[in-house]
Amino acid sequence: MLKISPLAPESFPEVKPVSGLSLTALRSEERYKGRNDVLIALLSEGTTSAAVFTQSLTPGAPVIWSRKVHAQNIARAMIVTAGNANVCTGKQGQANTQAIAKATAKLNQLKPEQVFVSSTGVIGEQLDVERILDSLPAQISPDYEQQDWLAAASAILTTDTFAKASSVSIELSGETITISGISKGSGMVEPNMATMLSYIFTDASIESDALQTMLNKAVDKSFNCITVDSDTSTSDTCLLFATGRAGPAISTIDSIDGGLFYTALEKLMTDLAQQVIRDGEGAQKFITVKVSGASSDQSAKIIAKSIANSPLVKTAIAGEDANWGRIVMAVGKAGQAINFEALRVSIGGVVIAEGDGPVAGYDESLVQAHIEGRYVNIDVDVGLGENGHATVWTCDLTHGYIEINADYRS
Amino acid sequence: MLKISPLAPESFPEVKPVSGLSLTALRSEERYKGRNDVLIALLSEGTTSAAVFTQSLTPGAPVIWSRKVHAQNIARAMIVTAGNANVCTGKQGQANTQAIAKATAKLNQLKPEQVFVSSTGVIGEQLDVERILDSLPAQISPDYEQQDWLAAASAILTTDTFAKASSVSIELSGETITISGISKGSGMVEPNMATMLSYIFTDASIESDALQTMLNKAVDKSFNCITVDSDTSTSDTCLLFATGRAGPAISTIDSIDGGLFYTALEKLMTDLAQQVIRDGEGAQKFITVKVSGASSDQSAKIIAKSIANSPLVKTAIAGEDANWGRIVMAVGKAGQAINFEALRVSIGGVVIAEGDGPVAGYDESLVQAHIEGRYVNIDVDVGLGENGHATVWTCDLTHGYIEINADYRS
Repeated sequence: MLKISPLAPESFPEVKPVSGLSLTALRSEERYKGRNDVLIALLSEGTTSAAVFTQSLTPGAPVIWSRKVHAQNIARAMIVTAGNANVCTGKQGQANTQAIAKATAKLNQLKPEQVFVSSTGVIGEQLDVERILDSLPAQISPDYEQQDWLAAASAILTTDTFAKASSVSIELSGETITISGISKGSGMVEPNMATMLSYIFTDASIESDALQTMLNKAVDKSFNCITVDSDTSTSDTCLLFATGRAGPAISTIDSIDGGLFYTALEKLMTDLAQQVIRDGEGAQKFITVKVSGASSDQSAKIIAKSIANSPLVKTAIAGEDANWGRIVMAVGKAGQAINFEALRVSIGGVVIAEGDGPVAGYDESLVQAHIEGRYVNIDVDVGLGENGHATVWTCDLTHGYIEINADYRS
Repeated sequence: MLKISPLAPESFPEVKPVSGLSLTALRSEERYKGRNDVLIALLSEGTTSAAVFTQSLTPGAPVIWSRKVHAQNIARAMIVTAGNANVCTGKQGQANTQAIAKATAKLNQLKPEQVFVSSTGVIGEQLDVERILDSLPAQISPDYEQQDWLAAASAILTTDTFAKASSVSIELSGETITISGISKGSGMVEPNMATMLSYIFTDASIESDALQTMLNKAVDKSFNCITVDSDTSTSDTCLLFATGRAGPAISTIDSIDGGLFYTALEKLMTDLAQQVIRDGEGAQKFITVKVSGASSDQSAKIIAKSIANSPLVKTAIAGEDANWGRIVMAVGKAGQAINFEALRVSIGGVVIAEGDGPVAGYDESLVQAHIEGRYVNIDVDVGLGENGHATVWTCDLTHGYIEINADYRS
């Protein structure tokens, strides 16, 4: 594993158990040696699920399969394999994914159509599927009360430098429910309707339509607001399972309990998404880009992504150079409505330019001190005086990114 | 100046003189010391001109001024200053550009509205305009028959590592006409309707409407087909002057002479555009991306740009890793219509994947040998069986790019 990101949390978080969930980490050594690389989750009867997948037009075989599982709406398990994404592998790749679903189903008397499959890693190589099948036990007797979250979060990593998890418990109508989730991702990260891979579990009781509505909305505010390198994965998958073993029955996001649950979910997913940025390939700095004053939230997000994806903005921050002109360039190329004569650019809370020119008496030393830190905040008001706003999280572009991606096949 | 790009031409080309053009290179030391940084071109009476500018919504003061000059259609001069782009500099920046136009006009009894102005370099700082004005002589007595092209091409450079020029003479109705041009550009290069900076001169006689039609078309096939880093400049400008001193009168691209002229122009502009890629910041490899089988030429260009702008594709080539799965990823994220089941990916003429999977017996060693060279060819047929096609030129993404952009303010 690579050197741990300087932006990593100090330690793996305390993750609360989710009743109705059984997690098993296994070692197939399909590609990676000496570490777990397979994760199986079994869910108790009555579980509902929601799913969002990559919008890529060259999706992997596991995504193609899991879309069918999602459509049947009877899922009770998932399996994740790390090291090989099984993408652009033709009919053989699809057969391999189905073999994995079938073998996983057998572990607990399920049907293959009840098993989501995800794979992550290199694109365009056939899986050594026998290694994965051989790593499975004859059967799993699920322990639905305790989970080893560190083992689970570690088993799904590829170029990541730390395991990512988040957990929260809240009260709904006087009863405690828990949401716990894991994710992975480091490069090829500009999720489009989902993230690299993220799996979230709750013991709350939520109808599947409501669950899907909440997942869509929360993905849009979390994973769809991050970018490492503007490259959208072929394997992005975000699954949300609700085992229904705790709390009141929730049938809509518009109820009090539904709203409380959604708020907790969005917060947890934002934490997971930000952990992906903290592990961005080669990242040395965590960058928050806020855009306001735009014609719509969507327009603001396009401008914020244009800034967050600009190699020149990202390298300037890597070099601790307060080269704000590159931010103006990135706003200009985004193709969205702005009022250049009222454009305001701030870094670290210091207004640098306002009304299409630098402000009088701008003191670069304050901004310089800010960008020498680990956390860099860029705020742009595009001057239209409207309410459209968005926040996007990204990281800087460093020699580390080149090293990771030019020197190894990942 | 940085180390000369390994992709640079062996020497500065022979550039034929253009009758009716006077070029003067000067040293203002506004930002760069010990080199020329101002270029003035004077054109003889009767010259027609055409222009294309950046589509950025945060254009520089010189672009705002030059659009007005272009609209008046009586241009007889241009001045280019290097080191400071005069962008996002407010009313003071616009006043500075006008002062430069006014002073340049005085050199040869012109009106300010006859003077195009370009500036290139850092964004967001006020020009030290006095230095530029002080560098101008009292007047210029134009020599309309000879030009020092190396001095001219050198005076407009910023992070470029070599001077860029191209020249051609052709026969039109038995008379010889000449087209000669220069350009600059190295980073912040994904031109949108124009390039960084390019100036082309011909002694042919072409009506201004026809000249503009030809320039628009040729820009679309040349400068709009290159990308270094996906960042679109605020200063992109491409000017084309025709002094009318040689050859037959041309009033349309649809005549025989008009067609011959256009073909030569497109070829020359493609050469200049490719020289910008040869000088891409940190470039070690020249990459040609061809996409075919798409629903339209525009769709093919979007897919080709998605490949050419992918940091993961560019770093894989930098690392000489035949990681073709990343090409599939970039096709998938482009959002354009494809037939995944008939997708064909080739590198160096070797078909690697066809019909959404690797071809039987694919021998990576052939592709490996190809990508270890300086020139890498990527061909993708998106499998729709339609005629849409496009070619885009780019370079790899190396440690050199990070060094140039993280370590210096440019």
